[in-house]
Amino acid sequence: MKSYRKELWFSVPGRRAFINITPQVEDCLHESGVKEGLVLVNAMHITASVFINDDERGLHHDYEEWLEELAPHEPIGQYQHNRTGEDNADAHLKRQVMGRGVVVAVTGNRLDFGPWEQIFYGEFDGGRRKRVLVKIIGE
Amino acid sequence: MKSYRKELWFSVPGRRAFINITPQVEDCLHESGVKEGLVLVNAMHITASVFINDDERGLHHDYEEWLEELAPHEPIGQYQHNRTGEDNADAHLKRQVMGRGVVVAVTGNRLDFGPWEQIFYGEFDGGRRKRVLVKIIGE
Amino acid sequence: MKSYRKELWFSVPGRRAFINITPQVEDCLHESGVKEGLVLVNAMHITASVFINDDERGLHHDYEEWLEELAPHEPIGQYQHNRTGEDNADAHLKRQVMGRGVVVAVTGNRLDFGPWEQIFYGEFDGGRRKRVLVKIIGE
Repeated sequence: MKSYRKELWFSVPGRRAFINITPQVEDCLHESGVKEGLVLVNAMHITASVFINDDERGLHHDYEEWLEELAPHEPIGQYQHNRTGEDNADAHLKRQVMGRGVVVAVTGNRLDFGPWEQIFYGEFDGGRRKRVLVKIIGE
Repeated sequence: MKSYRKELWFSVPGRRAFINITPQVEDCLHESGVKEGLVLVNAMHITASVFINDDERGLHHDYEEWLEELAPHEPIGQYQHNRTGEDNADAHLKRQVMGRGVVVAVTGNRLDFGPWEQIFYGEFDGGRRKRVLVKIIGE
Repeated sequence: MKSYRKELWFSVPGRRAFINITPQVEDCLHESGVKEGLVLVNAMHITASVFINDDERGLHHDYEEWLEELAPHEPIGQYQHNRTGEDNADAHLKRQVMGRGVVVAVTGNRLDFGPWEQIFYGEFDGGRRKRVLVKIIGE
């Protein structure tokens, strides 16, 4: 069994953003040499997500508005977590809706994807450098 | 390490439905001969889900109503994604709540399940043929 | 390839609770001897979750309130599932938001975690003994 590990670093200037990280994950896969197996891609921070969906600007706008409606950032004082001095409780909630990470099949050294699947890093509490873990196992 | 891959095809006539796909995944597992490992089952389309829950008609009705409340299909114009000519933005949102897919343990060539666990395909934008990927790795 | 399996049992006296199960999963990992691979940790019951987030009491309070708002327990009669004699339809919904389980990378016989990641059992329909599955594969 082969095993591969890499950290990808991201720094989002604003509070929230969606970044297509499919090319970086593909680079990892080629580097790993794994032909058949599984790739795990997960946020290493608990106010961020890795998820799979469409690379369409309008949809990302819809996600942003929808998540803000489901778990609004303000008023900050509505969340007990923010009494610790943080203002990111909403980010912990949003991340649960979008998920911590994804597991993708590897077939023939490629991400085994449907026609529109792309991997995104979802930042919900930006302004500093944060990491995504890529772990690949297989043969 | 053994590796197995199969696509399952589904065609839902209406817009939304939940289909129990546990028997098909079990067939894949037997076919694979994998005794110990992991099964990944995921929708290959970004307006559909694969998830694990109860095979109970009333609960599926509750999911349908709840998801429609969290991310209503109409009015279609409320979503920027639908300005691309699509009317399925809500399906991209619903799918995030229910998840893209599941990873299930394989023990003794069986799905290692609790008493009520069943695997469902969740269609949120039907009317055409769509695929689910089953990938199994192990020994 | 090595393979390891263990069931963890939990009994929550009330209806809902979040329990940090990271130490138990670490014990499993050490017991397994797996150095490189993947750990799957999932609820075996469909009214419970396993998820990764912060071990902060205020945040857990926020999750509790937020989930109760997204999928209220009462009135019980609002859910068709509860016509089967159950009163736990809301628990099936809440569990979808928080997820069935997590897949974690194993590197050097350790959970390959970011600084604040902790694994939680999320109970949404307590009052009886329920199980979490830990499955580890790798080398």
